[in-house]
Amino acid sequence: MRMDEQTRAPRPSGTGELFQLLRDGQPRTRSDLASVTGQSRSTIATRVDLLLSSGLVSPAGEASSTGGRPPATFAFNPAARVVLAVDLGATHARLAVTDLAGTVLAEHGEPISIGAGPAVVLDRVVEIGLDLLVAAGRPQSDLVSVGVGLPGPVEHSTGRPINPPIMPGWDDADVPGLLRSRLHVPVLVDNDVNLMALGEHTSQWRGVDHLLYVKVATGIGAGIISDGALRRGAQGAAGDLGHVAVPGGQDRPCRCGNTGCLEAVASGPAIAGELRARGLDATTSADVVALVRAGDLTASHAVRDAGRSIGGVLAACVSLLNPSVIVVGGQVAEAGEHLIAGIREVVYRRSLPLATQHLRIVATRTGAEAGVLGASAMAAEHVLSAAAIDTLIA
Amino acid sequence: MRMDEQTRAPRPSGTGELFQLLRDGQPRTRSDLASVTGQSRSTIATRVDLLLSSGLVSPAGEASSTGGRPPATFAFNPAARVVLAVDLGATHARLAVTDLAGTVLAEHGEPISIGAGPAVVLDRVVEIGLDLLVAAGRPQSDLVSVGVGLPGPVEHSTGRPINPPIMPGWDDADVPGLLRSRLHVPVLVDNDVNLMALGEHTSQWRGVDHLLYVKVATGIGAGIISDGALRRGAQGAAGDLGHVAVPGGQDRPCRCGNTGCLEAVASGPAIAGELRARGLDATTSADVVALVRAGDLTASHAVRDAGRSIGGVLAACVSLLNPSVIVVGGQVAEAGEHLIAGIREVVYRRSLPLATQHLRIVATRTGAEAGVLGASAMAAEHVLSAAAIDTLIA
Repeated sequence: MRMDEQTRAPRPSGTGELFQLLRDGQPRTRSDLASVTGQSRSTIATRVDLLLSSGLVSPAGEASSTGGRPPATFAFNPAARVVLAVDLGATHARLAVTDLAGTVLAEHGEPISIGAGPAVVLDRVVEIGLDLLVAAGRPQSDLVSVGVGLPGPVEHSTGRPINPPIMPGWDDADVPGLLRSRLHVPVLVDNDVNLMALGEHTSQWRGVDHLLYVKVATGIGAGIISDGALRRGAQGAAGDLGHVAVPGGQDRPCRCGNTGCLEAVASGPAIAGELRARGLDATTSADVVALVRAGDLTASHAVRDAGRSIGGVLAACVSLLNPSVIVVGGQVAEAGEHLIAGIREVVYRRSLPLATQHLRIVATRTGAEAGVLGASAMAAEHVLSAAAIDTLIA
Repeated sequence: MRMDEQTRAPRPSGTGELFQLLRDGQPRTRSDLASVTGQSRSTIATRVDLLLSSGLVSPAGEASSTGGRPPATFAFNPAARVVLAVDLGATHARLAVTDLAGTVLAEHGEPISIGAGPAVVLDRVVEIGLDLLVAAGRPQSDLVSVGVGLPGPVEHSTGRPINPPIMPGWDDADVPGLLRSRLHVPVLVDNDVNLMALGEHTSQWRGVDHLLYVKVATGIGAGIISDGALRRGAQGAAGDLGHVAVPGGQDRPCRCGNTGCLEAVASGPAIAGELRARGLDATTSADVVALVRAGDLTASHAVRDAGRSIGGVLAACVSLLNPSVIVVGGQVAEAGEHLIAGIREVVYRRSLPLATQHLRIVATRTGAEAGVLGASAMAAEHVLSAAAIDTLIA
């Protein structure tokens, strides 16, 4: 018997593509889907059934009807699966199990030493991850992917750190391979600041297509959202602003060997160094924040000065990228308005009116959660693409 | 008779999407297309017939066969339609009629005065455009779109200039409307430097996903290709580097009211000013280039110094965007290696190794053609999208 082409099993790829239409969460009828895709009703019915049985799409009630039995509607169900989001810093790890929309189901933070190396640190990540699945009440079979942020440059296509300055033992480590061998799902890895930008954008600024996220802490770095997506550059090194020359900062030596680098002038430790020179007791970003919060005027002036230096570099970034929002995060930003006030002062003075007339410069809304939210968004995005959905429901 | 779903006329949108598969120019059989899309052979046959009758797809010979009659193949035929590419500068216009792959069929350049205003200038553009169609031997019905580059900021979504400093009378002018009323096809407008970046990328660097094009002339500006596409920023002002502060340039007043702007230090007129101060006779970029070509060492040193200042700003751009290629164009680049040597010197010294280890800094390969090639690419891209193809063949 010749098989009618129409009744062949639909190609899996069509199901993943159909799912893309449902990702916005709006309920749709089978008939809506047939009319948008041009696919036959029988094909749509089969594909919707596949998605329903996977749980990724759920019944969403009945549509209104002009007569007769109202048709059933369907929508994306982000609670159907979970991802593990991992944000690793030099001295601190934060992990969360979230659903596919970034809703945190269980979360844990603890001090780590990144210098203990990938074997030790990633072992602990797996341990915490499995605990968090239990805490969230989800079986391991619900876990579909892992997103990891690392405090250094990462080749995003392979997930391997590249000469990370503060991560001894991690150069070229197969982070995805190590985690995948234990958790058996795809693992995506990126630089922590990129993920902070992604987390802030996904959770707070979805309607904004051009956003720059700047982290001011021990280091200074940026993550770029342009035309709605994270831009990593050719080697994944985009946003690496710490060693850009600051106008007027020429006399300050930097650990990189150059002088006048932004980090040597305006990072948490650089501000602390300024304060020590004025007789105050400060070494870290936290010390600086504590002094400002205690009302120390020298400290708040120093933070504002650092903001001006950062503003000088960001003015160039504004001219180059023309973002509509700059989000300022990182530990030094916790000192309050002083940092942003200094940044604003110089950016608005040094950039052309066309680039600044609609520009907002704001403090992070996600704070220390930004990295985990970004890791979750990256991990979820990976499994929700058309091709990945086909694999997931195969 | 109930209409079998399979034999319904295929929805036009499906034809445009099918065409996307053929855009790479590779010949494919109907059976190839059916297997990639999962569409039935009868649907494919109908859609291929629509594309064949439009001329946008042509027979491309026979595929090899394992037995029986070899199947026919089809491929995109970029010669089927033409676009008008328009590059307007302050004092010069360059226009070309090209096919949909950017092959120039007829071309014309002439002096204009942009300050004559949109009515006068665009009248002349229409006149030349119609002449070029005749010269190319193509009827006006073959023209499918127009791409226009303007020497100032443009809101790309509306095609209107926004407060362009050197284009009196053009602010908010409805450039697309004015041209469309005469030529009756879609008109796309962008800033000239963006189109130079697009032209250089499309014609010379298709495999490179991260490229920065820098124009050094009366003004200094950049066009950004990131993840393979032109990035215009929130107001279309991305790449506007002319008024970024140059470290060490603080004493130079700029026409914008600030001091130390890149244009005040390193543009053609700024270099000419330096040379006049040393007793040489120079006012424009062309004068500077002429002196360097005549072997004047003061002039070539001044151009190299300008390169160093531009390099200082580009080092920050490299840190921010991590491109793999920087293309240097514009009239001052015609002075030869001096400009690029100065740029290279500072970029490689001031950027982190990860960002520069695979970075190439090269002279434009398309020269004064870059803008027209970019205008052509933008115009062709617009009509070759899935939705536009559906309109075109409807």
